[in-house]
Formats: sequence, C-alpha cells, structure tokens
Amino acid sequence: MESVPIADLKERLRRAQEAAAKNDLAAFLLSPGPDLRYFVDYEAKALERITCLMIPSKGDPVLVVPRLEKLPAQMSGAGLLGIEILTYGEFDDPYQLIAKNITNHGSIAVDDRMWAVKAHAIKYATPNVTQVTAGKFVNALRSVKSRFEIDALRAVAQSIDSVHKLVPNLLKVGRTELDVARDIGALILKHDHAKVDFIIVASGPNGASPHHEPGSRKIQADDAIVVDIGGTSHLGYCSDSTRMYAMSSVSSEFLEMYQVLQEAQDRAVKVIKPGVKPSEIDHECRSTLADADLGHYFIHRTGHGIGVETHEDPYIGSSLHEPILENQAFSVEPGFYIEGKFGARIEDIVACTSVGVERLNTLSRDLVIVPA
Amino acid sequence: MESVPIADLKERLRRAQEAAAKNDLAAFLLSPGPDLRYFVDYEAKALERITCLMIPSKGDPVLVVPRLEKLPAQMSGAGLLGIEILTYGEFDDPYQLIAKNITNHGSIAVDDRMWAVKAHAIKYATPNVTQVTAGKFVNALRSVKSRFEIDALRAVAQSIDSVHKLVPNLLKVGRTELDVARDIGALILKHDHAKVDFIIVASGPNGASPHHEPGSRKIQADDAIVVDIGGTSHLGYCSDSTRMYAMSSVSSEFLEMYQVLQEAQDRAVKVIKPGVKPSEIDHECRSTLADADLGHYFIHRTGHGIGVETHEDPYIGSSLHEPILENQAFSVEPGFYIEGKFGARIEDIVACTSVGVERLNTLSRDLVIVPA
Repeated sequence: MESVPIADLKERLRRAQEAAAKNDLAAFLLSPGPDLRYFVDYEAKALERITCLMIPSKGDPVLVVPRLEKLPAQMSGAGLLGIEILTYGEFDDPYQLIAKNITNHGSIAVDDRMWAVKAHAIKYATPNVTQVTAGKFVNALRSVKSRFEIDALRAVAQSIDSVHKLVPNLLKVGRTELDVARDIGALILKHDHAKVDFIIVASGPNGASPHHEPGSRKIQADDAIVVDIGGTSHLGYCSDSTRMYAMSSVSSEFLEMYQVLQEAQDRAVKVIKPGVKPSEIDHECRSTLADADLGHYFIHRTGHGIGVETHEDPYIGSSLHEPILENQAFSVEPGFYIEGKFGARIEDIVACTSVGVERLNTLSRDLVIVPA
Repeated sequence: MESVPIADLKERLRRAQEAAAKNDLAAFLLSPGPDLRYFVDYEAKALERITCLMIPSKGDPVLVVPRLEKLPAQMSGAGLLGIEILTYGEFDDPYQLIAKNITNHGSIAVDDRMWAVKAHAIKYATPNVTQVTAGKFVNALRSVKSRFEIDALRAVAQSIDSVHKLVPNLLKVGRTELDVARDIGALILKHDHAKVDFIIVASGPNGASPHHEPGSRKIQADDAIVVDIGGTSHLGYCSDSTRMYAMSSVSSEFLEMYQVLQEAQDRAVKVIKPGVKPSEIDHECRSTLADADLGHYFIHRTGHGIGVETHEDPYIGSSLHEPILENQAFSVEPGFYIEGKFGARIEDIVACTSVGVERLNTLSRDLVIVPA
C-alpha cells in the first residue's frame, strides 16, 4: 500500500503545534475523518467509541483508541511516527482518559467533524476548559499543499481524466443514467482510485439540478449530459472533474450557451496567481455569464479547495476575499442551470503555483458530441 | 426505488414529538446520517453546509437545506410527508434561519452525529437555549422496530446469508485476503444490497484482531478464517453476519475451541425474550467460554443493535442491564482472539419477539471446512 512520506507527516504535526501555540490553544483534538488522515495517515473507522488524536501545543501528540483498534492504529502513520497510543477497554470511560491527558484550563479545539455527542462528552469531562472548533486553524494548514500533495493531486486528476476519456463510449440513447453511473463507478476503481466518492450523471432536464442523483431517466437524442465524478486515490487524495457531453441532436441554443461557459471557466483560471482573491476568480466566471444573460442561472459558488477531502479550503465565491496562496489547490467550476430544460458545468482542479496556475486536469474542455 | 412506507415515517415522527414533549425538549435537530434517514427517509449528503430536520415537540417539523439540495429533499420522504422545506442561499446564514425557527429558551437536542462545528454554530446562534444531544432519546425510539423494519432486516439478513453460502468457493490456499474481500464485495452488491458497509477477511493469526482490514496475507493450508461482512439494502437496512471457515489442515486445537464458541452463541440466543437483560445474554456467552478457559480471549461485548445503522441500540454487554424489549433487533457475536495464533467469531442478527427470539440469519453456524 502506498503511503504518505513520514517527513510530510512530521511537518504537518509541527505546523499544527505551531498553530496551537500561536492561537493559545492547549491542544487540537482530532477525530476519524480527513483530519486524522491528514495528520497521521490513519483511516480510522468513525465508531460510537471515540478515537482521538491529541496534538498539544507543547509536548508529544497521543492517540486515544478503543483497545480493539490498537493494531490498525499501530499500523497507521501514527505507529510509524512513534506516537504514543493510549487504549481503553469496553467499559472504561475514554473521556476521563482524554481529560487526564489535557490541560484543565484554557482552550482546546475539537475537530469540526467530531460527533456532537463526543464533543459534548469532552466538554462534560473538562468543565473548566473552553471548547472551540479546530476547523478554522486546521483548514488553513491543510489548504496549502506540499510538493508531495500537489503530485498526489495531479496523479489522481490524471486518473479521473482517463475515466472521462471513456465516458463517450457509455452514452447511448435509451441507456439510463444509472446504467452509465454504474459503468463509470467500475472505471473509477479500475483507473487508480481506492474509492468512488460520487458520480453525477444528469441528463437533459436533470442537468438543471447541480447535485442530481443518477436515476432511471433514459438518455434522449437531444440531451446535454453533465458528468461530474470523483474518487479517492490509494494515497488518500481526491479527484473531482466535470465534463459535458451532448447527444447528436442537442439544440443550438445549448451549444451557444456552452461556448459562454467554456469562456467563463477559461477566464477564471487565467487570473489565478498568488494573491488573487477568490472573489476576483468568481467575478471572472460570473461576469462572463452575466454578459450573455446567463448570470441568473449560475446558482452556486465557483469552486472549492480539494485534498484529502473533496471539499475543503479555500472556497471560491463572490464574498470571499482572503488572498489565494501558492500551493493551494481548488476547483474552478462555473455552470448554468435552467429548470425544465438543461444544465451545464465545467470543472477542473487547479493548483496555484509561484507564478500562476497549473491545471491538474488536462483533458480538453470542449463539449464532447456523442455520435448517434 | 423501494422506499419506507409513509405510515411508518408518520409514526416515527409522532413518537419523536411525543419523546420531545415528555423530556421537555423544544425540538430535535437532526443531521444527515442515520437519524435523517430514519425519520424522513432522506439520504442527504453530509456537506459543510448544514442540512437539519427540526422536529418540534409541538407544531410541524421543518427541513432546512442548502438551496442546491432542494430537489433531492423534495424527492425524499420529507417531500412525500409534505414537510416544509426551508432553503438558504450560498451566502445566507443558515444558523440564523434555524434560530428563527426554534425556541429562544429551554432545551434543544442535536443529533449525536451532528458535526461539532455545526452544533457550536447553533449554540452561538441560540445562546439562551440549553443544548443537549439527541441520541439517548432518538436511539431508544430507533431500537424498537416496526413490522416493516423487522421484515426489512430479515430480508437483508437473508441476502448476506446468500453471500456467505458462496464464500467457500472463494477460499483457496495462496489467495490473499484482499482477493477474497474484493470478490465478496461484488457478491454483496449482487445479492440485493445497495452498498457494501464492511468486509473483514482475517486469516490465520490476523483473526486475532477483531476489526482486521483485509490485506496481502495469503491463505495457508491450516488457516481458520473469520469472515464478517455487511451491507445496506435498498430500503436502507443493514446486514451483519460472521461465519467461520477453515482450510483442511486446521488444528484440532482450533476445532475444539470452535465447538465451545458455537455452544456459547447458541446458549446466548436461547435466553432472549422480552425482559431479559443484555448482561444476562452476555453472561451466557462469557461463562460458557470461561468454563473452557477461553474467557480471557473474549475481549469485546456480545452484541449491538442494528437497523438503519450497523451499530445502534441496544448494546449487549456485561454491564448493561436495561431489559430487552419486544421488536428490538441485535447481533449475538461471541468470539475468541489469541494473539499470534488465530481468532474466531460467530455472529447472527436476532429479533426479540413477543414470546422469544427469531434468528434473522438462518445459515448453519457449523464451521465450514474448505477442502484442499
């Protein structure tokens, strides 16, 4: 199994401790999910029994796990890093164990995704400690990628590109969205993903719903089809790319609108460089669509960061002005959604480089017309 | 697509409102995950933007969703039930919308699995409201199944039994655990599951880790092999069953211990009826194993409830004394785990009936010896 380099993990933990100290936090308490995967490359099950990585501002991190999970914990990055693993038995109170290992005053930050029942139990076990959420600190760390991470994102982007290349073969009049989605699922796994994260196949009027679930609708001869797909690589990094397909009798009205969308996406990508504001990227999309009277149909933000999670910082939207940093990676995905008719979206993952931008998805963004 | 009968959903909501009123809670605030699926048959994505079903003690439930999710929400049980769907835009504050729709005093109960960041944001938007977690109330409701639910659990148990029937064909000396697990995954989907939830294939000494992840270890001629598998049916109900397989040169030491385990599981199932305590069921397993000097190797509780989630109330353990109720469904799964040697577990899902117990898994529990 491939794994994240230990040097990367050490640097991530170092930055977390630095962020804790800088923000007067005694510790981060992180749960199974993307944060645990990011900091110690541990893909733990989210169980009703708590697993918690405690990263103190000073001293060594410790990992609290149910006794049954000791072996997988040891085999994760946490074991390789030599992090102390504290286990508890079926009838022990893990919250007392956690409380014993942190401060009894000051502030701690719990994982944004920690289950409320666990955050409440920690609060109960540490009544004098102020509890805040860790996302605003941790997300900023996760949003700036190492060279290893950019390479991992590029690799998984190429994998999803190879899937998109094969999608035209799957689209035939009379096939259902679900038929197509099932085939795509198998292709995602075949093309170097460990996991399928989502498959949107939205044909004809279903394209007007940005998060449409593939269903029993059959492809028609004049359909435009939104295919938005993604998975997680064996290294734990996510792909996410949308391409548009159209059956041969698609309307010229759609074709015209698509040209505008493609231009909007291009323009937005071109302005990316360190220091650009998300709102400026968003504006390129939104104004290009608005100039063609399509602004009203672009009903979502322009993009989202991506890494060990499909959606993470930085987000790209009209009210977000925090400058983009070198080595942040995110999607640029304008769309238009016209209820009862059709929808369209083009989505690439890009990385902000020291001088500009690199598209990690490199497949053509031209509309793919599927011959009858 | 199959779906939960509306009458069932109505009854679930009625019981939730009754529980809220009885416990002086102004409302339950439920998140994507098993609770949302249970109450309104809505399999919502857990996104950074909150989706929240508010079930007040009095008045009508409302469902808060991001605007982009309006269509799937309408198409879920929530739409069929006529529940009001409140949407918010990309840059609206959903927590103000939630705050406006609940009390500004008293107590509310948030989903056990609500992300901490969302529970904290709700607390911030409703500073005068006491926030507790909903699990202790909701889990009790979910633990007692309707006739429809018992039927759904029986159906999905039969589906996983059909998979276990085929497992012996997959076990061959030299195949890796991962080879076997991949084949089982395909079979789970083929046999009427919508989703694979977990696949444990733990061969030889790996069997000593109850939650072993299938890996590159190759099956040996004298291996005992733990196969613990489960998935979710199209109706949203979970299967979970463990059977033991052994290659033909397995040791007689293992065979003897297995007899004890099988007897332990049988005895535990036989004492089940309304009013029996989980600790009494657990005791049957534990004392049978202890009498054969295997007590020390039984390192987990005896079982867990099952429904829209693989693990839910009621749990079966030595310190749990709340009497079992008619129509609760749960696993009975004693095991022994001997580090460096082997492990074993037998697991069936059972339902407590008005007079006793029904095994929902009906496949033989005899050790399956795979010919060389």
